[in-house]
Amino acid sequence: MKILKDKSISDVQGFKTAGIAAGFKKSGKKDLALIYSEKKAVSAGTFTTNKVKAAPVILNMEYIKNENTQAIIVNSGQANACTGEAGFEDAKVISKITADELGLNEKEVLQASTGVIGVSIPMDIMKNGIKNVCALKSNEGGKNTVEAIMTTDTKTKEITVEILLGGKKVLISGIAKGSGMIKPNMATMLSFVVTDANISKAMLNKVVKASVKDSYNMISVDGDTSTNDMMICIANGAAQNELIDSENEEFIIFKEALDFVNKELAKKMARDGEGATKLIEVEVVNAKDLESAKMCAMSVVSSNLVKAALFGSDPNWGRIVCAVGYSGADFDPNKVDVQFKSLVGEIKVFENGMNIYFNEEKASKILEQEKIVIYVNLNEGEYAAKAWGCDLTYKYVKINGEYRT
Amino acid sequence: MKILKDKSISDVQGFKTAGIAAGFKKSGKKDLALIYSEKKAVSAGTFTTNKVKAAPVILNMEYIKNENTQAIIVNSGQANACTGEAGFEDAKVISKITADELGLNEKEVLQASTGVIGVSIPMDIMKNGIKNVCALKSNEGGKNTVEAIMTTDTKTKEITVEILLGGKKVLISGIAKGSGMIKPNMATMLSFVVTDANISKAMLNKVVKASVKDSYNMISVDGDTSTNDMMICIANGAAQNELIDSENEEFIIFKEALDFVNKELAKKMARDGEGATKLIEVEVVNAKDLESAKMCAMSVVSSNLVKAALFGSDPNWGRIVCAVGYSGADFDPNKVDVQFKSLVGEIKVFENGMNIYFNEEKASKILEQEKIVIYVNLNEGEYAAKAWGCDLTYKYVKINGEYRT
Repeated sequence: MKILKDKSISDVQGFKTAGIAAGFKKSGKKDLALIYSEKKAVSAGTFTTNKVKAAPVILNMEYIKNENTQAIIVNSGQANACTGEAGFEDAKVISKITADELGLNEKEVLQASTGVIGVSIPMDIMKNGIKNVCALKSNEGGKNTVEAIMTTDTKTKEITVEILLGGKKVLISGIAKGSGMIKPNMATMLSFVVTDANISKAMLNKVVKASVKDSYNMISVDGDTSTNDMMICIANGAAQNELIDSENEEFIIFKEALDFVNKELAKKMARDGEGATKLIEVEVVNAKDLESAKMCAMSVVSSNLVKAALFGSDPNWGRIVCAVGYSGADFDPNKVDVQFKSLVGEIKVFENGMNIYFNEEKASKILEQEKIVIYVNLNEGEYAAKAWGCDLTYKYVKINGEYRT
Repeated sequence: MKILKDKSISDVQGFKTAGIAAGFKKSGKKDLALIYSEKKAVSAGTFTTNKVKAAPVILNMEYIKNENTQAIIVNSGQANACTGEAGFEDAKVISKITADELGLNEKEVLQASTGVIGVSIPMDIMKNGIKNVCALKSNEGGKNTVEAIMTTDTKTKEITVEILLGGKKVLISGIAKGSGMIKPNMATMLSFVVTDANISKAMLNKVVKASVKDSYNMISVDGDTSTNDMMICIANGAAQNELIDSENEEFIIFKEALDFVNKELAKKMARDGEGATKLIEVEVVNAKDLESAKMCAMSVVSSNLVKAALFGSDPNWGRIVCAVGYSGADFDPNKVDVQFKSLVGEIKVFENGMNIYFNEEKASKILEQEKIVIYVNLNEGEYAAKAWGCDLTYKYVKINGEYRT
């Protein structure tokens, strides 16, 4: 697998994209994105488990069952969540006019909205915007597209990889947005991955569902699962590899690459968590079972006390062990070891469930880095899991606590 | 039931208490407390569900089975958590020497420690301290006792009520500490309630377990369940009411009063949450079942985004509805109403699962108060629940993010 640093989603064979400033954001920044496949394509996705689902989520859950999916239209600025029956009707119109513009059936168009909850989509802006964004779709549109889906994000989030499937070059390329209201439980924020791989809808569905569990579902910024989360993958087969319709060797290669793409996008979201200064990775090893490893990793990465301690580069292992303890994981408290790791070194701070002597200054230096690993060894079994998050900072409170009218 | 504002735990018949500065805290503040019953007494308690349990918690879970409990010894400064076998041996010695000093059996002495995790109890200080604190026990010791159990608390937390049981005056008086690492799941932080009621151990156990569920288990400051949480109630029968040994009328009167005491102490902890400027009460009504009402209330009061919004007096109902949505509660999103209430008024901001027009300025004024109620009507059934918490502020990050060596 090769990472292609200069490529974007619009470089994937058979895909054209665009991103424009349609007028949803008062700031005048880009706010409407289109991802379009020229060829017929299969799609798979996962959506928020929040019982309060935004209109686009509800509509997508129906339309994604369609055998063919050729477009995703995304606006940022208004979330079209808690907008009632009228909001749902708006969502249907959005798919319909996008479909008309592209010569598709409305069920072949998926959509997403992100932004303020409870605000209806300004449909005049949407109608004009859809015309303009469809007209501008191109193979150079990737950068604009990823910018147009951002809200409080400070950085764009994208990645493109190349793999070989039966001798054919295949690209997988994803873009994502997300910074706050992030503790996906199923899909996440917005993440769109396109590929020219030739894969059946059933197999794509299988690989997407599995991949989401270890990537987007293992990050937390603030523990809040949004009403609008979604991850959608579209595969148009333009690479002309032999159709993947079973869990064969190509399926495994494809899965590994998709996992990589999804984890990279997930980590980028965690690192760009609202107000964050650091990416925190919690690696739990030697757990009795996978569920325990995952619960333990998510519990530590979600703890406000751990997050605040890491903001201050405080080697406060007590808070980590406490979060391991209330995680619900099955483990023996007397066997737990904890280490801190970063680019400048590593240090053990807790062993066999007990405090040990360690050089606090060295530990603090390790924690001053921008990427920190909290390594928790449960010394019980053979299962491992990773989760990602960020520190809790003054800026998080500022971003979310300053009342903006 | 009468609230006795000037009374404290040492005013309950047959109880003597003391609080001293023994030297556990570098600040020189009070840090060792004794609660002592002159008469034989029954006890009941609940303890942290964290799998990592501090030594005093493990020891108490054994000793509290004893038919007689006459003392609780509490130090603040070191938590005696994650201190291994040596820490457990220390805990046994602490009960033993306290028992010797008071002429009791070691199983008749419970204990608690609170403070930094992973630090062993300085046993020289403890041995001297126990001698001194036992010598000082008196009926005027209440104020010193409640001060001696504080750590990051900014205010003492105590309450005393009087009830009549079969014509006899009965006092119930409680003290508590807790400010951070607070999302009790079973018992909570430290809370000690004493009463001169005459009640059997079995009935005391029953009433304590029930009462904790609706009080301490319904508050959250930061979602972190501590390793040292405990709530203990001691009843010595000095009021000479007829023994309560069934769920009779007196049991119900006693339960109501104990519920009040526990809820007041729980709310005091929530209001004194680290860095908090406001007490937040989430009241969920008309839920399908009790579990849904409770999950919904706890989800909203625990949301970082809701807490940060309330710090800024931002009537951001979207975050509240989002937290209701991911709570796991069983409800219909299209029936939800949300109101804000405080001393200066109330305002509906969300109706039938939809955004409605409301006066944002008025809503913000309501949220500027020190005590805020978020009223969520699920319009589904007949169950209700309340949860308490606080806002998320710069100061929370400062308290927990500044590295103190």
